[in-house]
Amino acid sequence: MANVAIMGFGTIGFGTAEVLTKNSDIIAKRIGEPVNLKYILDIRDFPDSPYASKLIKDFAIIENDPEIDVVVECIGGTGVSRDFTLRAIKAGKSVVTSNKALVAKCAPEIFPLAVEKNVSYLFEASVGGGIPIIHPLTQCLAANNINDIMGILNGTCNYILTQMSQKDLDFDVALKQAQKLGYAEADPTDDVEGIDTARKIAILCSICFNRHVISESIPCKGISKITKDDLAFASCENYAIRLLGRGVSGENPAIFVSPHFVPSTNPLYGVNDAFNSIFVDCDMLGTSMFYGKGAGDLPTASAVVSDVIEAIVKKALPKKAAWDTQNTYSVKGQSDFVSRYYVRCSSLPTIDGIKLLSGGNGIAFITLPMSVEEIEALSSKVNAEIYMPVMD
Amino acid sequence: MANVAIMGFGTIGFGTAEVLTKNSDIIAKRIGEPVNLKYILDIRDFPDSPYASKLIKDFAIIENDPEIDVVVECIGGTGVSRDFTLRAIKAGKSVVTSNKALVAKCAPEIFPLAVEKNVSYLFEASVGGGIPIIHPLTQCLAANNINDIMGILNGTCNYILTQMSQKDLDFDVALKQAQKLGYAEADPTDDVEGIDTARKIAILCSICFNRHVISESIPCKGISKITKDDLAFASCENYAIRLLGRGVSGENPAIFVSPHFVPSTNPLYGVNDAFNSIFVDCDMLGTSMFYGKGAGDLPTASAVVSDVIEAIVKKALPKKAAWDTQNTYSVKGQSDFVSRYYVRCSSLPTIDGIKLLSGGNGIAFITLPMSVEEIEALSSKVNAEIYMPVMD
Repeated sequence: MANVAIMGFGTIGFGTAEVLTKNSDIIAKRIGEPVNLKYILDIRDFPDSPYASKLIKDFAIIENDPEIDVVVECIGGTGVSRDFTLRAIKAGKSVVTSNKALVAKCAPEIFPLAVEKNVSYLFEASVGGGIPIIHPLTQCLAANNINDIMGILNGTCNYILTQMSQKDLDFDVALKQAQKLGYAEADPTDDVEGIDTARKIAILCSICFNRHVISESIPCKGISKITKDDLAFASCENYAIRLLGRGVSGENPAIFVSPHFVPSTNPLYGVNDAFNSIFVDCDMLGTSMFYGKGAGDLPTASAVVSDVIEAIVKKALPKKAAWDTQNTYSVKGQSDFVSRYYVRCSSLPTIDGIKLLSGGNGIAFITLPMSVEEIEALSSKVNAEIYMPVMD
Repeated sequence: MANVAIMGFGTIGFGTAEVLTKNSDIIAKRIGEPVNLKYILDIRDFPDSPYASKLIKDFAIIENDPEIDVVVECIGGTGVSRDFTLRAIKAGKSVVTSNKALVAKCAPEIFPLAVEKNVSYLFEASVGGGIPIIHPLTQCLAANNINDIMGILNGTCNYILTQMSQKDLDFDVALKQAQKLGYAEADPTDDVEGIDTARKIAILCSICFNRHVISESIPCKGISKITKDDLAFASCENYAIRLLGRGVSGENPAIFVSPHFVPSTNPLYGVNDAFNSIFVDCDMLGTSMFYGKGAGDLPTASAVVSDVIEAIVKKALPKKAAWDTQNTYSVKGQSDFVSRYYVRCSSLPTIDGIKLLSGGNGIAFITLPMSVEEIEALSSKVNAEIYMPVMD
């Protein structure tokens, strides 16, 4: 029998307890032995929870219990979660997490310790919720060099953009609706300004480009400035607007978060509502895409528990570090990145080679391919209200 | 240094040699040691090949070379490929294959031998070409019960259907075009009649339902009877026609191959040309989809080499059997499967609750939900020329 402890009894922690309990049969079959959920750590009381008997408040109980094989960290943030993660690993336990902030920030501290202690540190649930993407990248695409990776990584933003487009809503109205339905937080900044997406694309690009990408260095534009007109202009040309985290390979990979014009021929075009999707272009396989529920208690817990299973099955042979954390990468410019751009502005510019758009109020056009420096200069020249890359 | 032998120097065998050679740097980094392609076995001569020096004709050289860690089987079929696979495993070597016919037929013989000899038998490339699907199913979705799995698993059929729909072509014309482009064989029966799809869905369902599904027992309808009119009727109602291999869970899982009406709200709708895609609905994660190139030398070799990497990395801890081969399953009926159906016939039927369609020549309608027995009875009553499930 393998023993597991969950730290943090919020949405994901509860979902993990549910999956471990409800699907205990199939999990035991996969592993070859049953999994016992021994402790749930939380500072709060849950007297009416079916898991009340497992709740504890002192991390030292987990740390000092030699029976605990795997610790699931669902605390979030980078404070106490970091401390407990490091202590659990030092105590010889594998750690599984859904905490993208911690992975994006503290991998250089956590990965080498896990290697030293010969345990697994797994984080499939940190990006794309339940969608298998970390394992496919580290394992199934292992024979490939990645050219380009881009993902719809934030369900809140995608829900808002879908609603704005389908129901002709302003951003503020769609945001309020998302908050009402529980898709968006009371303070939606991390989601709508792309900060959450930046953490996730930092993790994906760290794997793809085998270096530790500093999440805070990623140029980041969110969706709060997008108007109904932008969506109308896009729709008239058979584009959808999607917030993408993106990494383009090169000497200095261009990594950024921005809304994009996505053509109807691209599979990301049809990804609606709160779904997530990650599109990968690599040298041998070509293009592939991974699609599914990017949030929610059970979908995310599905990924957490798949990691728990792996940590137990591969106890004798823990996974190696997912990237070279010694090699840190701060995104400076996007010097090699060239794209066409959508621009909306208030007065008609006199520029060659642009394609004027119709379908919305105001003036909007698509440029010829240009560098980031060029679009920045152009944007300031025409007093652009918004601009974003147009995918081919 | 790890040593690899390739058996069969056709499209996939050559692609595997190319990936191992071209991406040797990244592969060595992933494994922690370089991979040496030591032998290529083929009965033919390839004097002008860059790999000519590695070509051998006698399998015993591979079998008796203790340096060989992994054997890649790209021979195809179930004759000599079976013999060499069993002998390689008996000699203590892991085997990686792209051969769906062999996996679908001989898993009950091969899996237990691999377990006994403590080596890996891996077959990611056997379904969906380069798309990661076997590992996601066995590993990332391991905490889930699968409700429904369906896949566009044959690029030839999907290319033909896309061309018929986009260019208003008859089946015969589109088939000839596919043959000209090398997408279809001179004898296209295995592809267009769904036999290839049946083998692949047999493998996927064997994993999902943890029993050995007898591929030959799968009810199988292909695309050769589909006309331009069917595509016109479908398109007018916002459906695409896709050939799906499908498995629906239950006491006796319904497993079958058939063209389907796929609505534009389903992500499989947008999968065009020779691309493959697998859609999975499971109890914890909900729906997810895996999309990419389902054929071709380098995409398939990408999956082969990812398995080679895994076999080397996990030498000390080979993967367990992917399903319980003791438990064989012969698909008898589809007793629990209920669906609406599209029916095209020559004279107007007098039946309640049907929705008559327009947009094509002839008479076509969509039924209310019914069982397989009911649609068979109805089909014979109205002299149907074709019928197929309509997805919600």
